[in-house]
Amino acid sequence: MTEKPLILVTNDDGINAPGIRTLIEVLNTIGEVVVVAPDSPQSGMGHAITINSTLYVRQISTKNESQLEYSCSGTPADCVKLGIREILKRKPDLCVSGINHGSNASINVIYSGTMSAAIEAGIEGIPAIGFSLLDYNWKANFEACKPFVKTITENALKNGIPNDVVLNVNIPNVSKENIKGIKICRQAKANWVEAFDKRKNPQGRDYYWLSGEFINLDSGEDTDEWALENNYVSVVPTQFDLTAHKHIETLNNWNL
Amino acid sequence: MTEKPLILVTNDDGINAPGIRTLIEVLNTIGEVVVVAPDSPQSGMGHAITINSTLYVRQISTKNESQLEYSCSGTPADCVKLGIREILKRKPDLCVSGINHGSNASINVIYSGTMSAAIEAGIEGIPAIGFSLLDYNWKANFEACKPFVKTITENALKNGIPNDVVLNVNIPNVSKENIKGIKICRQAKANWVEAFDKRKNPQGRDYYWLSGEFINLDSGEDTDEWALENNYVSVVPTQFDLTAHKHIETLNNWNL
Repeated sequence: MTEKPLILVTNDDGINAPGIRTLIEVLNTIGEVVVVAPDSPQSGMGHAITINSTLYVRQISTKNESQLEYSCSGTPADCVKLGIREILKRKPDLCVSGINHGSNASINVIYSGTMSAAIEAGIEGIPAIGFSLLDYNWKANFEACKPFVKTITENALKNGIPNDVVLNVNIPNVSKENIKGIKICRQAKANWVEAFDKRKNPQGRDYYWLSGEFINLDSGEDTDEWALENNYVSVVPTQFDLTAHKHIETLNNWNL
Repeated sequence: MTEKPLILVTNDDGINAPGIRTLIEVLNTIGEVVVVAPDSPQSGMGHAITINSTLYVRQISTKNESQLEYSCSGTPADCVKLGIREILKRKPDLCVSGINHGSNASINVIYSGTMSAAIEAGIEGIPAIGFSLLDYNWKANFEACKPFVKTITENALKNGIPNDVVLNVNIPNVSKENIKGIKICRQAKANWVEAFDKRKNPQGRDYYWLSGEFINLDSGEDTDEWALENNYVSVVPTQFDLTAHKHIETLNNWNL
């Protein structure tokens, strides 16, 4: 009898989000699931960690379900650190984050709490995947995600994810029948052009809301944005060695 | 007469930190400086941005100094976005972040608010540099940093930083005479092994403080950690395309 794989599950939309509920449902068919997720939404937290404040953890009652669940007052990266060091009995075989409500394709990976959790696990030597659906709504329909979560997770467990790489998976917001398949992609070059909404508070002081428009600057057909626009699930192998290796030589020609 | 370069200055330790004061002093000798920095310390914020809350900006009186200064209630990445879109009259020629109180070498780049500000500028197409001194103390001595900030900034303005690359500069905590020079490096492979400090609050509930030990897993002499241990200033060309390009082929062999 082989032991079931131990899977640490987290997200950035909070432990009660429909996206993580779908993820737990699928992963319960694959392994032993332990959830350590933020007790409130943490979108846009990037790779923030809690240094100057305390962290609380609470075990959640789950009744007729097989997973153990813990909510944590910290960021997604905190959840992974706490899960590994304080909650899990052994090193997990896999960490899965999501399913995020909204895209983490292209440059969004930089701002993403979902992906920061997966990257944190990767840094700790644990194979990791982040899943996102291209629908920001709380009541998004995650039904079409299920077979892709299952296939990609099973492949990751069977083949192993390369060292120092985590998978950034994004799923187009269309029905299951309209998804054409899975494409391995590179991160599209894109950015957000901010348009701050300037208002006055009741005391007459100016304040701002951050908003903006997503601009894809990359017409490559090998990118995640292209795949998603064409109704493919995108998978980007994502690394946390940020060195631009090819430019080490460029800088060696500076007069330093 | 050529116009002086416009330099956007920010940090993550807050606008009153000694590190940013040193940075402003040096950059005032090079260009026209505008400071947009957090109104309070933001260490460990990674690439967090403020989505669900408002942002306040306040112009600071600077008396006999030439720079304009604005404090902002947001994260380092928010400061850069607000600086570019709402405060500066034109696109800056350079964005400089720091000088951070503490190392941002190796894996620390991922958690760093200082570097997230530089990376945010890079994403927006602005040449950018993050400086850090390997001393976490508020009263750190930044004297030895000055000539290196000046040389590296002048070189960046003269040579141009390659597109989609920002510079991560770390400075050893030794006197000027003991710094051997500047080395262009790759990011060392390293991680933090957390040791959560579990305590009870006055109501008897458990809580945690995150702490940990930094472990360098990389003995390469071309890394930032090696350079710093050997009293060199390290410069890592850092990118925000996180694609592990060489593993696209690996994943194409999965059964997806």
